[in-house]
Amino acid sequence: MSEAGPGAEAPPRFDEAFAAQFKTLLAWRRDVRRFRRDALPEGLVETLLDQAELAPSVGYSQPWRWLRVTAPEQRAAVQASFARCNAAALADYEGERARLYAGLKLAGLQEAPEQLAVFCDHGTQQGHGLGRRTMPEMLDYSVVAAITQLWLAARVQGVGLGWVSILEPDAVREALGAPSSWKLIAYLCLGWPQEAQDVPELVRAGWERSRGSLRGW
Amino acid sequence: MSEAGPGAEAPPRFDEAFAAQFKTLLAWRRDVRRFRRDALPEGLVETLLDQAELAPSVGYSQPWRWLRVTAPEQRAAVQASFARCNAAALADYEGERARLYAGLKLAGLQEAPEQLAVFCDHGTQQGHGLGRRTMPEMLDYSVVAAITQLWLAARVQGVGLGWVSILEPDAVREALGAPSSWKLIAYLCLGWPQEAQDVPELVRAGWERSRGSLRGW
Repeated sequence: MSEAGPGAEAPPRFDEAFAAQFKTLLAWRRDVRRFRRDALPEGLVETLLDQAELAPSVGYSQPWRWLRVTAPEQRAAVQASFARCNAAALADYEGERARLYAGLKLAGLQEAPEQLAVFCDHGTQQGHGLGRRTMPEMLDYSVVAAITQLWLAARVQGVGLGWVSILEPDAVREALGAPSSWKLIAYLCLGWPQEAQDVPELVRAGWERSRGSLRGW
Repeated sequence: MSEAGPGAEAPPRFDEAFAAQFKTLLAWRRDVRRFRRDALPEGLVETLLDQAELAPSVGYSQPWRWLRVTAPEQRAAVQASFARCNAAALADYEGERARLYAGLKLAGLQEAPEQLAVFCDHGTQQGHGLGRRTMPEMLDYSVVAAITQLWLAARVQGVGLGWVSILEPDAVREALGAPSSWKLIAYLCLGWPQEAQDVPELVRAGWERSRGSLRGW
């Protein structure tokens, strides 16, 4: 980012055409579980992370830590954790709901060419604790904001992202050799999606419907 | 959103001009604390919330709940909580750091014409628990994703947003009369910003510097 001051760039204005396209972007961002197996172009993930890291963070703490998971044994450990959690989740449902759950595809761990584990560094001194004295969870939320921006930046480029949470966070952290002061926030699959959609997969599969807004006014 | 199927719209493609503007949007989104006092146009907040609610949510749970805070006595209660927390935070710093902290403007609670309290409904059945058995915090993270989208959608329209976390979450929830099953995720100030900036206020004030990415590869 450039320093503001004399000669700094003029603030941007976003016109109606951009605003309409931005809304389209939000409507067509999906949690993707069906990926093509071909690799993303060299350097694209870094470009997307540069945009993710423009996210707001409490006290400017920038607590996001990204691990790129490429080793087959590490990917296998993540898949094993998913399999355990998914079986346990299925066992919690009954009847029609269990049948529906069993039919869902909930992760692209086998196919996604890029996989990122995203952590929050609870040991960071960056930010000097500002803004998280009474709401310490703000540090984790800062990482979620960065992931949300990554998601949108990916969709701009036609790249799909899926957030896998059916995992044992500590087991995944240990399998990836991350420090114990890092909290797993997300495990992300990225790649070219098999299809583009403006309706969430869980809606198409009959798991859940959209509901009206519950605003307090 | 439209149903996909025969006759559905073609998936959008985002061109390089849009991608460049999107990156500019991320670079010029700020945590705003200096607002003009004039009201936002009628209906604009609702339009922004419609875009926020396109956010990803675990199991399509859509757990975000928005309260628009307009009553003077409610705003006063929030300001009082901020004043208590801010004084306690200042007392935790020493020397130069305390001097710096005392000089920061950390909220626009007195001036911002629109103020929203954002909660996560921990009692919701929506989503049938999918994806949050081992990571229950996913429900809160879904609300943070919606807030991040709200922030960007606001900036597209030139509207500034500031996230206030120097608050007692339970005291604020009670002052606003929200159910005890709702967790306060954020208190947001919205309005026209006094200035546009591409450098965070905490950097300009000398509180914290940007740091290089800490990527694990």
